[in-house]
Amino acid sequence: MTAKPAPIYDRVAFIGLGLIASSMALAIRQFGLAREITGHAKSAETRATALEIGLCDKVFDTAAQAVDGADLVVLCVPVGAMGEIAAEIAPRLKAGACVSDVGSVKQAVIAAVAPHIPADVAFVPAHPLAGTEHSGPRSGFATLFQNRWCLLTPTETSTPEATSRLRALWEGMGANVDEMDAAHHDLVLAVVSHTPHLIAYTMVGVADHLRRVSNSEVIKYSASGFRDFTRIAASDPTMWRDVFLTNKDAVLDILGRFTEELFVLQRAIRMGDGDELHAYFTRTRAIRRGIIEAGQDTAAPDFGRVAAKKDA
Amino acid sequence: MTAKPAPIYDRVAFIGLGLIASSMALAIRQFGLAREITGHAKSAETRATALEIGLCDKVFDTAAQAVDGADLVVLCVPVGAMGEIAAEIAPRLKAGACVSDVGSVKQAVIAAVAPHIPADVAFVPAHPLAGTEHSGPRSGFATLFQNRWCLLTPTETSTPEATSRLRALWEGMGANVDEMDAAHHDLVLAVVSHTPHLIAYTMVGVADHLRRVSNSEVIKYSASGFRDFTRIAASDPTMWRDVFLTNKDAVLDILGRFTEELFVLQRAIRMGDGDELHAYFTRTRAIRRGIIEAGQDTAAPDFGRVAAKKDA
Repeated sequence: MTAKPAPIYDRVAFIGLGLIASSMALAIRQFGLAREITGHAKSAETRATALEIGLCDKVFDTAAQAVDGADLVVLCVPVGAMGEIAAEIAPRLKAGACVSDVGSVKQAVIAAVAPHIPADVAFVPAHPLAGTEHSGPRSGFATLFQNRWCLLTPTETSTPEATSRLRALWEGMGANVDEMDAAHHDLVLAVVSHTPHLIAYTMVGVADHLRRVSNSEVIKYSASGFRDFTRIAASDPTMWRDVFLTNKDAVLDILGRFTEELFVLQRAIRMGDGDELHAYFTRTRAIRRGIIEAGQDTAAPDFGRVAAKKDA
Repeated sequence: MTAKPAPIYDRVAFIGLGLIASSMALAIRQFGLAREITGHAKSAETRATALEIGLCDKVFDTAAQAVDGADLVVLCVPVGAMGEIAAEIAPRLKAGACVSDVGSVKQAVIAAVAPHIPADVAFVPAHPLAGTEHSGPRSGFATLFQNRWCLLTPTETSTPEATSRLRALWEGMGANVDEMDAAHHDLVLAVVSHTPHLIAYTMVGVADHLRRVSNSEVIKYSASGFRDFTRIAASDPTMWRDVFLTNKDAVLDILGRFTEELFVLQRAIRMGDGDELHAYFTRTRAIRRGIIEAGQDTAAPDFGRVAAKKDA
């Protein structure tokens, strides 16, 4: 048996027990990063499941009870629910504790949560860039964060100590950690995640509405392109509703650029300008190579082909 | 050793030796579906590679030589090059032979190829819905078509015998085969493949142009959405240029619908209409479930995570 390092926190409390919280709980246990895990979820069914599968040592009916005595409180609820939870737990937070979150939008979370944080508590916003299209307490797995980025966006209510301790937790769960300004985070995420999700949702919606092509055809022939869109578009509706409502400015900015760019390509198609199309597609191929070189994916042919294996 | 069935064709000739042709050649060999494989590619380097790795028994410098004596000739060149190749090989086609292709667009291929087909030769257009983001003679693998669809779009120049023999070949390579009208094929593919590809190319292009977000940030933080787009947008530029130029009407139709739909969601974001967003995202999730139930993908959490494994 490998010796485990000393726990980073004594007690960690999760508010919300979905994909991210359950993956964190499993990773924290596996790598011995905390002595005790408590939790709360709004739904009684989720609370029962969390106890049943052993995600938490203790599960409480209210968020306020769950944070009692915790060194680290992680808000894992949809972005739109963070403010209310912060107000509820604030009076019960331990002096010297740290509050963090895992929301996909940072400026809105900071605006909603920071005003409630007591002077003797640190608030260090975080966003792990990891997920799957599944949700709920049973969807978590301990390796979700392995070699994925976790972005910290420290604020005036963060302390260097609290930030570096939280960084150690994320690194302990296998993540690479970067720090950046919350506004920059929101713009970067609008580009690499939020807008692509909206586009995938839209394309899947178009297919669903089209009466000349049946849904069974769309489903049968989804290889080569559409399948990747449906995977993205299967993500949790509540989480994504809140992302778009709270990162509105950056998403609308990127959507505007996307539409302009799409019209340029659409015009090239209409005018039969093959050279422009070819040059564009050649440029985008290079970005893909960059991602493979950065180690965020493999070069193995995939295209959503989970079932089939390469026959070397 | 398992007994192999009798070969379906005596000699199969491939014109163009990229991902699809090389995968077909490997599958034909593995499953014993033809006695001999010949081939031609425009590039001398590709021809040398094909000989070196044993894709073909014989490789010829011209398409006309390669088709000499072949029972089945498969055109595996970009859609825009099909007509010229058909004109070149027509005089050398064996009486009773079958010409097929693997183009992603069917009406344009039929219009370009059918007029050149001699009266004693059958032409059966085909389109395997399988691929990866890689190209070239080394990118093929024998299992590429396993449990994937291959669509046949028979024309007036097809005979029932030639169509059923080609169907047997595709089924022998592991594909499921459907027949449909070429115009319907082009519309279905515009929805499930061509428009999603154009959108992915566009989104990757937007990221590349954005100066406030560096390309290295885009690459580092590409998890959760953008990575799937880059994989799609890394596909062969020449093939895709030709797809958009030759399936113009259907792609422009679907793009128009996509833009309308995107504007509805964009407006909901601008107006803060969370209910509309939530309802939309809930509907698209159901389509994803349909694809999993249809066996075209697995329910395992993936999101492009080829490297990490689920920790059960």
